[in-house]
Amino acid sequence: MPEINNINNADMQPIQMDGVKGASMAVMIGRHNKAPHFALRSIAVEPGGNTPLHQHDYEHEVYVVSGKGQVLLEGDTHPIKTGDTILVPANELHQFTVPDNASEPFRFLCLVPVEQNCGGDVPGS
Amino acid sequence: MPEINNINNADMQPIQMDGVKGASMAVMIGRHNKAPHFALRSIAVEPGGNTPLHQHDYEHEVYVVSGKGQVLLEGDTHPIKTGDTILVPANELHQFTVPDNASEPFRFLCLVPVEQNCGGDVPGS
Repeated sequence: MPEINNINNADMQPIQMDGVKGASMAVMIGRHNKAPHFALRSIAVEPGGNTPLHQHDYEHEVYVVSGKGQVLLEGDTHPIKTGDTILVPANELHQFTVPDNASEPFRFLCLVPVEQNCGGDVPGS
Repeated sequence: MPEINNINNADMQPIQMDGVKGASMAVMIGRHNKAPHFALRSIAVEPGGNTPLHQHDYEHEVYVVSGKGQVLLEGDTHPIKTGDTILVPANELHQFTVPDNASEPFRFLCLVPVEQNCGGDVPGS
């Protein structure tokens, strides 16, 4: 059978990293189903939550599935909403944050290459 | 400024390939904004429309943004809907089709590596 799955049925697991608050993830397409070049992950962040403030030697390509939040990128905070696509270049400090009073779930897809630029598997790919 | 764009404001262009009917595309993240490994394209298919029936030496990773359609993959037709993720492996014949009576626009993200497995740029990356 082909790999056809739905983000609403995915087994979302809390993201266990320093500085993360209220964020969970499911790898929809990745190493486990033999994605050869890049992995597609579904991420949810609760109101008042955030992903880690960090940087790494590989890029993210992001699509906002639902909700409103903000991304810290290139030294500034930018509002983001449903339908937005965001390129987070390699080595750029970044963080996704959702306001306390968010009225709907903030969900996004975050894609990463399966290999780091300096070699080795990308975590969560 | 970071590359933050919205699929609802994108300049969708008709897909000019043999066998395509009523399909348009915008490259949201790709070579034009220096995506190093893979490209994120937004595709819309009208009711009664379809993408080409074809195969190639690189994979697709697909996310269904809205609507209902079907994908021909691994020799069978599978229904697909909002929230689905689909891995189309390299060298698999595939086609996305939307029924004539579809009540809402069928839109999906289709991601491709920027380089073909046997070398050279992936078209539309």
